[in-house]
Formats: sequence, structure tokens, C-alpha cells
Amino acid sequence: MRDFSSDHRWLSLNTATVRKQADLIGIVEACARHGIRTIDPWRDQVVAVGLDRAVRAVRDAGLELSGYCRGGMFVSDAARRGEVRDDNRRAVDEAKALGAPCVVLVVGGLPQYSRPGSDPSKDIAAAWGQVHDGIAEMLEYARTANMPLAIEPLHPAYAADRACVNTTRQALDLCDAIDPARSGMLGTALDVYHIWWDFELMDQIARAGGERILAFHVCDWLVPTRDMLNDRGMMGDGVIDIRRVRAAVEAQGFAGYSEVEIFSNDWWARPLDEVLRTCIERHRTVV
Amino acid sequence: MRDFSSDHRWLSLNTATVRKQADLIGIVEACARHGIRTIDPWRDQVVAVGLDRAVRAVRDAGLELSGYCRGGMFVSDAARRGEVRDDNRRAVDEAKALGAPCVVLVVGGLPQYSRPGSDPSKDIAAAWGQVHDGIAEMLEYARTANMPLAIEPLHPAYAADRACVNTTRQALDLCDAIDPARSGMLGTALDVYHIWWDFELMDQIARAGGERILAFHVCDWLVPTRDMLNDRGMMGDGVIDIRRVRAAVEAQGFAGYSEVEIFSNDWWARPLDEVLRTCIERHRTVV
Repeated sequence: MRDFSSDHRWLSLNTATVRKQADLIGIVEACARHGIRTIDPWRDQVVAVGLDRAVRAVRDAGLELSGYCRGGMFVSDAARRGEVRDDNRRAVDEAKALGAPCVVLVVGGLPQYSRPGSDPSKDIAAAWGQVHDGIAEMLEYARTANMPLAIEPLHPAYAADRACVNTTRQALDLCDAIDPARSGMLGTALDVYHIWWDFELMDQIARAGGERILAFHVCDWLVPTRDMLNDRGMMGDGVIDIRRVRAAVEAQGFAGYSEVEIFSNDWWARPLDEVLRTCIERHRTVV
Repeated sequence: MRDFSSDHRWLSLNTATVRKQADLIGIVEACARHGIRTIDPWRDQVVAVGLDRAVRAVRDAGLELSGYCRGGMFVSDAARRGEVRDDNRRAVDEAKALGAPCVVLVVGGLPQYSRPGSDPSKDIAAAWGQVHDGIAEMLEYARTANMPLAIEPLHPAYAADRACVNTTRQALDLCDAIDPARSGMLGTALDVYHIWWDFELMDQIARAGGERILAFHVCDWLVPTRDMLNDRGMMGDGVIDIRRVRAAVEAQGFAGYSEVEIFSNDWWARPLDEVLRTCIERHRTVV
């Protein structure tokens, strides 16, 4: 297991962590100030400053990317299928322009939440089917761009509105079904927040193998969690044994970034530099 | 699949649903008014009126029980193990006195939440081990009382503070390990709120078989969920296809009650009779 205690070479900042404090340009500048060399930007943050400007800012700052957030939301009613396909192809194109190593997929839940305006449904089994088909279709396009796709299992608390893929086993079942040859173009993004509770986690990380773990995200689970979406904890402030999970992914050969992704009304209210300093300190001490 | 549309013979009221409106005696009286013939009381509600008085009230009203909530919280530090064992034995004794068909087990999460005052820990694997051992020990006692135990997998949102058994698969793995003979004394309590999101649910219900489904609970998952614990929905107000799950458990031979268990600040604020009328109407139309 790599020693993170003396530097933060392997810290990546998911830019949603400080989305309320600055735009993407401001976040890139702050990363330079703090010696953070890697980010994972969100599409809306890229759109807000313009793709070309985002590409230049990343390049001029010498930043790498650890992923691009996000593609997916595959579940919709029939009228929106073309829109979903085109939207995900654009995500691949943007990721390519930015030099991302993968597009992170949040697959969508029920259609009325995944693609607002869709006819409402309670048929989660139909959603699972659409997710399978949507990833398979997107992967064809992603292969032509040589852009890997990383299925992110989300905590079951988000099954209805964000992602109906909720365990590492389920994500890997999709990988097996859609990319049985293990081409390297389809894998998982594992975020401790979503998967820490799973009694099968260690077995499923071993099943994934290093080549199907395309991203590794960290934050913490707070007790109590006061907001279902925006009360994630800073690493060390909650109950997740983060190091146990990192040890498991690294034992499979994963040698990438520990990407800090914190959706938190609390941390969004603090100064940008304080948040980044804290991320770095916790990266060294508890990740 | 049974037809619930014309009566509510198979509705049971989990008494937590109206815990803020009345004590257990008042709830029993309300059930009589509404023709509800079955309840599942909580231990603290029984304690509040006294066990003997609760037993008499249930008997005098001619009520049945569909379960007794709850045993469990097996995870603690070493100093509290004896207390945990004794507490769970008392739960079995109380269930026997009340004529319950099973004790529902909420197994506990990390020790500092499961048994407050315990030394804090982030070791969820240790918690899983304690849950296994705790159920095995409790089952020995329960066998002598001929009182079945029903492991309730709780939604993963409660893994830290309430139960580290979070899927039907995990609950059944425990049943297989502790009661491989399928004696009938150990099974599951399946609540749609906790398990609706699970891509393996139908397979695991089939694996359980009718004889290991000891209780079936209903409510609904609201989007958004504004409170992690106390914002469950009335059946029909959320996204769960309840009938699909009931069809699956009945296909395995389950012929017991659909027990309404709603923890909701919203429904707790409404008049008792309105809540029961609504439960009955929804039982007929969406359960």
C-alpha cells in the first residue's frame, strides 16, 4: 500500500467539492496554489466557463485529470432516447478534449428523475434494462474515441433519483455482460461513500481486479447524515475505514488517484483554501 | 396473489406508525374502531404501559400479533456483551407473553451507535462477526421458547447506526450459516423500504422460500427523502412497486400480513384515525 503521509502526489480534487466557492478557472488556480496536480471536473462546471477555456486552463496549469464527471442518466421515456445518446456522446468528446482517462457514469434511476420530463415509472427492472442497453450503446462510441467508461455504483439511497446500480457486484455484472472480453474500456469508479457498508465489498474488489477499477473516490459517511445528498463528510470525520478500502483496491494493482469528492453544504460554506488545506491534511493522515 | 381490494383482513399495524398519537392502549382501541385485527408493537411502547397491561389489552381486544419489534443491537464493546444477551432474552420472553409469532431483529451497526457508550469503532467487519455470534446465541434461547427470530435487512443508509445487515442476500447468508437445517426458527423480515432497490431482490426472495419469510412490511420511498430516518412514505406516495414485491413473496408461499410500518414526522403529526383510514385505503388499492 502506498504511503501518502509525506506528500499529496496521489490526491485528485473532484471539483464538485468546491463548486460553490469558485468556477472551474478559480479552482484550477487554487489547485496550483496548493500543489494539487490532478482534478476531476464536472460537466456543468466546464460548460459554465466554456470547453475551450477549460481545456486551456487545465493545460496551462499542467494539471492531469483523474476522470470526467459525468455521463449516464440512461433511463428515460422513449421520446428522449436520442437526446440521451447524443448527450453521452458529447460527454465522451469533452472528456477527450480535456485529456480525461475515463468518463464516470452515473447511470440514472427512474425515468422521471434521470431525465426530467419523462413519463413517471416505478419499474426499476425496466430501468436496469435501459442502463444495460445505454451503456452498451455508449461504449461503442467511446471505443472509437478510446475513452474508457467507469460505472459508478451509487449508494442505494440514490436508487430512485440518480442511479439504479447500487453495488459493486451489480456494476461488475454489467461489465461482464457488456464487455466480457475485459477490453479495458469498461470498468468501475469506486467511491467509499457509496460502497463502504457492503458485506461483499472485499470480494467484489478482488473480482474487479486492478484493470477494472478506473477510479477511486474518497470522503466520509457522517452519523447522523442530515441531508441525503449534500452532507458527505471530510475524510476522517465519519465512520468509514477508508484505508481498509484503499488497501483492498491497491492490492488488486490499482495505482491511481484518491479523488476527494465531497458534496457538503457545510464544506461549501467554508473558504476554498481552507477546504483544500483540509483535504491535503486528511489525505496524508486518514486516506 | 391474494386480493386485498375488498377488505383489510391481512393488514397489520406496526404500532410505531402512530407512536406519537397514542400509547399502546390507545392504539389497540383505535385498531378495534377500524377493524384492524393485527399489530406489531415496539418494546418501548410495551414498557410504557407495562407488559401485563399490554398483554391484557391485546387479549381483550382479540388482536393477533404479526411480530414483536425488536431484538438485536448485537454490536457492543466487550463490557456490554452480557447486557446485550440479557436484553435480547427479555425480548423473547416479552414476545412469548404477547403471543407474537416472531421477534424482529435489527442487528445493530457500529458499537457506539448500536449500544451507546461502547468504545467507538469503524470496524464493520468486526460488527458482522458480532452479529453472527449474537444471533447464534440468541437463537439458542429462542429455541427453548419456541420463538422464531426474523433478521430484518435494513437499508444501507442505516449501516452505521442501526443495522450492518443490509441486503436480503446477507440476511439469508446468516440464516444459512446459523440455521443450516432450516429449522423454521430463523428467517427474515422483509420491508419494501429497505430492499426495493436491490437488483438481486427477486432472486433472493426465491432463495428465502416461504418458510424463511417471517414478516413482510410495507411503506414507501419518497423522492426527495427529507429525513434519513423519519420521512418514510405512505404506500402509494413514493416510488416502490409494492405489489411486485408482494407478488414475489406470495409466490414463495408467504401467506401472512402486510404490516404497515411508517416512520414519518409528517404522518405522526396527523390524527390517529386519519392515519389508520389512509393505511386501510392504501392497503386495498396499492399494496
